Amino acid sequence: MEPATESRSYSPGLEGVLAGETAIALVDGKNGRLTYRGYPIGELVRHGSYADVAELLWTGEWGPGARLACASLSPPVLAALRNLPDGANAMDALRSAVSAWGAAERPGWPPSAEQARALTAMTPTALAGYARLQQGLEPIEPDPDLPLAAGFLYQLTGELPDEADARALDAYLIVAAEHSFNASTFAARVITSTKSDLASAVCGAIGALKGPLHGGAPTEVASQLLQIGSPERAEAWMRGALDRGERLMGFGHRVYRAYDPRAAALREVAEGMANAADWLKLAVAVEDVALRLLAERHPDRGLKTNVEYYTAAVLQGVGLPPAIFPATFAMARHAGWTAHCIEQASANRLIRPDVRYVGPAERSLPGVGATA
Amino acid sequence: MEPATESRSYSPGLEGVLAGETAIALVDGKNGRLTYRGYPIGELVRHGSYADVAELLWTGEWGPGARLACASLSPPVLAALRNLPDGANAMDALRSAVSAWGAAERPGWPPSAEQARALTAMTPTALAGYARLQQGLEPIEPDPDLPLAAGFLYQLTGELPDEADARALDAYLIVAAEHSFNASTFAARVITSTKSDLASAVCGAIGALKGPLHGGAPTEVASQLLQIGSPERAEAWMRGALDRGERLMGFGHRVYRAYDPRAAALREVAEGMANAADWLKLAVAVEDVALRLLAERHPDRGLKTNVEYYTAAVLQGVGLPPAIFPATFAMARHAGWTAHCIEQASANRLIRPDVRYVGPAERSLPGVGATA
Repeated sequence: MEPATESRSYSPGLEGVLAGETAIALVDGKNGRLTYRGYPIGELVRHGSYADVAELLWTGEWGPGARLACASLSPPVLAALRNLPDGANAMDALRSAVSAWGAAERPGWPPSAEQARALTAMTPTALAGYARLQQGLEPIEPDPDLPLAAGFLYQLTGELPDEADARALDAYLIVAAEHSFNASTFAARVITSTKSDLASAVCGAIGALKGPLHGGAPTEVASQLLQIGSPERAEAWMRGALDRGERLMGFGHRVYRAYDPRAAALREVAEGMANAADWLKLAVAVEDVALRLLAERHPDRGLKTNVEYYTAAVLQGVGLPPAIFPATFAMARHAGWTAHCIEQASANRLIRPDVRYVGPAERSLPGVGATA
Repeated sequence: MEPATESRSYSPGLEGVLAGETAIALVDGKNGRLTYRGYPIGELVRHGSYADVAELLWTGEWGPGARLACASLSPPVLAALRNLPDGANAMDALRSAVSAWGAAERPGWPPSAEQARALTAMTPTALAGYARLQQGLEPIEPDPDLPLAAGFLYQLTGELPDEADARALDAYLIVAAEHSFNASTFAARVITSTKSDLASAVCGAIGALKGPLHGGAPTEVASQLLQIGSPERAEAWMRGALDRGERLMGFGHRVYRAYDPRAAALREVAEGMANAADWLKLAVAVEDVALRLLAERHPDRGLKTNVEYYTAAVLQGVGLPPAIFPATFAMARHAGWTAHCIEQASANRLIRPDVRYVGPAERSLPGVGATA
């Protein structure tokens, strides 16, 4: 390091430091707004599918009616999943599947929407295949006529999913598809910035999302809903938890001070369903009680429902095992990660920050005289 | 994005932006110095082995005589390599091997020197196994009595390597082990900062190093040396290349204005060998001619030999196929990457920079009325 740099200011974690420009998503925490390519997340959930939204993220163009079905796995990807040890972590499995996909497909530079489509279509099949193999079941071939969310549920169970379940999962995939810069998206862009390939970037992103400081804790919300069990038990259960000084899971967010627009969009889907499942009714009822109690106990903190709350409700509700919640988040985020890779490549510049050296001054090895 | 942030200055590629602190290595480009934990790279090459240097990077302590032998592959890692398609890229293979290793070993938080040792010992076996499988040969079990560099060569060929070859490769592994922040090391730290695991971080780093803007082009230097063929042909060949406006490969560096200390250390090893191989004699002779010609043609530019020059000479000299040069660089860099993961975790803070939104203003979907 040049001595002249030592006096520069330093922001740990790059907090508040601009590391790039993006036209993909805008996160407005103060006002509780999230837009993809300018379109509010609520409208996208109301009027689009995950396929539509993924195309919007990749190309910038809105064209409803897009199709994106789960893709078959090539032999190297299937082999990577078959050879995982029993009890392998779902994120490790997904990372290995994407790595094998990259080794087999060799996506070239620059990352493209075509590559993004292929990878985003592969991942649900890989995740469902992993989940079945870990249960001692054979993977199920994808049905090319099913949209991604329905196809993923079909490949988990071998049965055509309930329409409301598929719709709820599709809505979840939309709200989880993209959230601008964060550690995983940033990792994907750093990797892309070396002119590396899309699979390498997404492997890095999956690895970053695996960390609990990023991936969050939807599993804990699911556990909370399971413990509450029914709407009429909600108030007593939560009052008890708060009295014991415990946190209610699924409320409060680092960025959103207003109601998380993703939670709002998912609740709207839940409420609009003609035959909402019991789990959705439970989630809505519990949320109402929780917000009332939190306002009562912490009127100054403005705690609102966050996306994890409805993530847990939806993923649990459609029958996913909690062990694959984080990997399902990663699956949804493929659209956003790959959109960022495409954007990074479109005006690429190697991302290579400086570092401040705080180690020992130059010295000789013990027992070795002064040297050149 | 908050409107208040819009006026902040922005440094593309984070150039000149401090993104962290490190006590591991100091890169002093102006003076041509590189130290690991304060010790000059030249001394480390002269008096230590890769095992000694890796321990120094991980623990901060110098204790010569460290042992690090190549480790056997667990079945999931071996399966990942066996199932790669013919012609798979070596970096994709290494990334897949490390991902499978992580899935099988499940290294926990925080990353530790013990984990780093295990991963760094696994990688040479994986790379050699990949290289043999791609040639239709069976992988060779590691010999636990051989140090890492010799063991890697043994596993490539099945024969005990020449002592001078093993020494030259060990010296290369030392100089390539660490180079402070760069895109791959930074990617590893971003991933670690989410409290993700060591394997996830190293997968991301391998992916970043795969990019030609980072991993460089030692293959092109090797091709240049092959074309020159003998010391007496060097001057005519290089004059011809310069007359045609071509670049000489292996000279000039973004950071080092003085002679690259890594190249100097490798040349010293080459010159100190009692029975230097012909390829080393060629490399030294060609370098002398190249520096003379470059000083003659570009006296103002101060072009000096860079580390890629001796990387190519050493890796080609010890018999590695050019297709695995970048992966051999990645293998050497495992010590540094994992040291950075340990350091990041020791005072962790999530790395999550800001971004400037430059996309469309909020708008409604075509055909959809104004909505909340």
